Amino acid sequence: MSEIGRVGLIGAGVIGAGWAARFAVNGIDVRVFDPDPRAPTRLDEALEDAARAYARLTLAPPLPPGRIELAASLEEAVAGADFIQESAPEREDLKRSLLAAASRAAPAEAIIASSTSGILPSHLQTDCTGPERVLVGHPFNPVYLLPLVEVVGGKATSAASSERAADVYRSVGMHPLVLETEIDAFIADRLLEALWREALHLVNDGVATAGQIDEAIAFGPGLRWSVMGTFLLYRLAGGEAGMRHFLAQFGPTLELPWTHLKAPELTDELVARIAEQSDAQAGGRTIRELARLRDDCLVSVIQGLRTHDHGAGAVLRAYEAKLFSRAHRAAGDEPHDLSRPLELHAARVAPEWVDFNNHMTESRYLQVFGDATDALLRFVGADDEYMATGRSFYTVESHIRHLREVAGGEPVSVATQILGCDEKRVHLFHRMFHGERGDRRGSTNGSERRDEGVTELATAEHMLLHVDTAAGRASPAAPEVLARLREIVSAQAPLGAPEGAGRRIAMPASANAAAGRGAAPGGALPE
Amino acid sequence: MSEIGRVGLIGAGVIGAGWAARFAVNGIDVRVFDPDPRAPTRLDEALEDAARAYARLTLAPPLPPGRIELAASLEEAVAGADFIQESAPEREDLKRSLLAAASRAAPAEAIIASSTSGILPSHLQTDCTGPERVLVGHPFNPVYLLPLVEVVGGKATSAASSERAADVYRSVGMHPLVLETEIDAFIADRLLEALWREALHLVNDGVATAGQIDEAIAFGPGLRWSVMGTFLLYRLAGGEAGMRHFLAQFGPTLELPWTHLKAPELTDELVARIAEQSDAQAGGRTIRELARLRDDCLVSVIQGLRTHDHGAGAVLRAYEAKLFSRAHRAAGDEPHDLSRPLELHAARVAPEWVDFNNHMTESRYLQVFGDATDALLRFVGADDEYMATGRSFYTVESHIRHLREVAGGEPVSVATQILGCDEKRVHLFHRMFHGERGDRRGSTNGSERRDEGVTELATAEHMLLHVDTAAGRASPAAPEVLARLREIVSAQAPLGAPEGAGRRIAMPASANAAAGRGAAPGGALPE
Repeated sequence: MSEIGRVGLIGAGVIGAGWAARFAVNGIDVRVFDPDPRAPTRLDEALEDAARAYARLTLAPPLPPGRIELAASLEEAVAGADFIQESAPEREDLKRSLLAAASRAAPAEAIIASSTSGILPSHLQTDCTGPERVLVGHPFNPVYLLPLVEVVGGKATSAASSERAADVYRSVGMHPLVLETEIDAFIADRLLEALWREALHLVNDGVATAGQIDEAIAFGPGLRWSVMGTFLLYRLAGGEAGMRHFLAQFGPTLELPWTHLKAPELTDELVARIAEQSDAQAGGRTIRELARLRDDCLVSVIQGLRTHDHGAGAVLRAYEAKLFSRAHRAAGDEPHDLSRPLELHAARVAPEWVDFNNHMTESRYLQVFGDATDALLRFVGADDEYMATGRSFYTVESHIRHLREVAGGEPVSVATQILGCDEKRVHLFHRMFHGERGDRRGSTNGSERRDEGVTELATAEHMLLHVDTAAGRASPAAPEVLARLREIVSAQAPLGAPEGAGRRIAMPASANAAAGRGAAPGGALPE
Repeated sequence: MSEIGRVGLIGAGVIGAGWAARFAVNGIDVRVFDPDPRAPTRLDEALEDAARAYARLTLAPPLPPGRIELAASLEEAVAGADFIQESAPEREDLKRSLLAAASRAAPAEAIIASSTSGILPSHLQTDCTGPERVLVGHPFNPVYLLPLVEVVGGKATSAASSERAADVYRSVGMHPLVLETEIDAFIADRLLEALWREALHLVNDGVATAGQIDEAIAFGPGLRWSVMGTFLLYRLAGGEAGMRHFLAQFGPTLELPWTHLKAPELTDELVARIAEQSDAQAGGRTIRELARLRDDCLVSVIQGLRTHDHGAGAVLRAYEAKLFSRAHRAAGDEPHDLSRPLELHAARVAPEWVDFNNHMTESRYLQVFGDATDALLRFVGADDEYMATGRSFYTVESHIRHLREVAGGEPVSVATQILGCDEKRVHLFHRMFHGERGDRRGSTNGSERRDEGVTELATAEHMLLHVDTAAGRASPAAPEVLARLREIVSAQAPLGAPEGAGRRIAMPASANAAAGRGAAPGGALPE
């Protein structure tokens, strides 16, 4: 993806090892110098963690990983490299001498970037040969996963070098923020540092513990900050009246002793500047549009955390458990009409289920159908307790028809018919619809055409085999499970076989496979 | 879920309307006083936005929504209420008088909470009747979605009242953070305010724009803050050596002019206190364990944002597009014998693809087959560039046979035959084998029985339809793609139809569906 051949790294601490991993998973060879005996372990661990994260992050085909080699000296690490990244401890004298040495040993056209969190690039490049290609590229931990990198040039840095560095960072999946002005700690770390120092004051003053302070971030403002920055969020907090209104309303707060940090005076000129920059950010979108974008993103972020039962996601999971148990108590055992297709499973298209075009991927259709099969099995008594006795149903054959696409975040629900069963087999037919379960129930009001006005997304026909899991062979299902299955088969028999059941895949008769001259009608085409 | 009957709300600005929406979606009736003529619109919009967010947030059965009524006076809003939440503008005199009036009109046992961002509860409760039940419950915008609420009592507040308020907030899905010490701006807003004031300085000094500052948050530190707070994140940044090491390493930074805010002195006592509190937070988990939790959560957060093509999610999407296009370029260069099944895709069963028995789940089989289909399409020239011209192949039908199970971490590869094609259709048959691609190639060495000794895991038969994506209907494939497809169909024709092609799903003839008395042989049973 990038034109760069090899990267030279100086330093293999948490940041340096993170860089090694990011370049390597992006197919770029890396040579690292770090005299610390723990460096090889750190590099191995970072690469392992990065590979693990990328395997989860994307279904895109991974690149053949680049090689990570340890160099015996700084000179060996940078010789012949196209791009050099220094991540030594945060001491100006040390960094200056390492960068100077690197600039002498590296090819003349190689870009040399420092990972410094805050030292001015003009200082860092002072002793370098070819200082025009020396700059700051400040990443954030974990380096292999977070996209932000601040690109800051010093007085001697050329604009072309900054652009070249930004291209390299972009090629490994990052979001370079190129700053015009150099300032101690740049942008992000000034904000981080202000928050961190205030947090240290709170602990020092005995007002709150580290744990409480972390909760105050991760259960509230931190969730928002993964979506939008402070300016845009405050624009939304101001309501339709916008940023000027917000500043007028909360301006007096800046005078209050709400932090140890004194604010700048909110002059007319500053208010005008902020309002103008805020308008530019909003790009013509209304407060309501931005608020919905914020909410949609927050929902997905919290759901993402729910996957790991962590933080705000753990709060959601506990809340849902209460809702489910309440609904269960309230509804008792909701009666199901066995003569109709059973509606036992609903889902919402999760963020990680969609492709590139934000459509649910093929395989996730099968996942939803699989979950519907599980719900049916629980319904007939083949539940976890049953499975624990060494009996189970395996899917041996599936036939899926894709009728329509469905986007991320949308609700889907499944209606199920049992077409047949014997002691060892269950023949199922699922239909997946767009919308909540209630949508269909409400709209049809008991009529035969249950699905009027509801979009059918896909169907799945399955053959399940009952299995003795210990013996590893087909076996008869328990009598009570079989009785329940047969009851449903009988009750649903008048429904007949649904459209699409019993199909085989074949070219239309008119099409000659080898010659391929058939005229194809439109068929069941997804929207 | 909660025992409270009705809530009285004072104020229906962004925060007050957010409270109304949160209580209402949790089935609690609300009576609101706000003389502002825009109040009804704000309440409607907040409820609409909250309902929309909850419909996406959870599949748990929703509660019947509570009613939102406008009251003609403060007294009417709070009379008979079990819980009162004041969200008036941030002026101490105004809030004091509203809370005093509420305390006189409300039932004696009703809890009275103020949404203030930072005014001390001891001040707010001064003029109240029954000040022991008056406290701060500070929420975060959007109130209906973010779980954090800071619960802070004043000098007169009883511990029982704080616990009661925390219970009420918990019952509506929130995470109450009960603070022992009252301090201006409490905890979260001190951190927010420090960051905000520093950001105002950056704009005032002309160093960065509002847009740049927001990017510096949302593409980096903000992503982490949705997962963990600053203390735990810095513990991880310190590596295995932990918090003391981090403080030793970055302590000197506190002396640097990295913000306008002066840090407290890092005394031995403060370092010891932070290290101890950090240990308590970590709860015995190693740095590596915490780092993996952080990474897993970050992956899910970024994927969540990808659904909305926003922020860090938009960066990921653009990155994936490049990976896909690069992979196809690479695949095009490899020589293939068209008279044999094409081996274009291989994968390894990823950790998140397996069920609790460590077997690949059904839907992941289809994912591997889908990737094999994509690889075939790229091979015949229907690549990203082709798709970008508004043409694509959609899978309209799939038939999967599950033959054997495969465990996590194992390699699988797919061999593909094209059984037929016409201008608009492709009829495919994939076979999935255990092992690397090379395994089979090496072991068969050109013999007819290519698959000897290699375990077949599953087969998939697909019908693809060529589509004009803009028009949304079937269309003929480009001549060069069609020519390539026909070339393969002709070359593979001597192979004949593979076993399992053209199957339909049905009960064995002997089985009577309703009676289910058929004798079932073992059949194609997974191991």
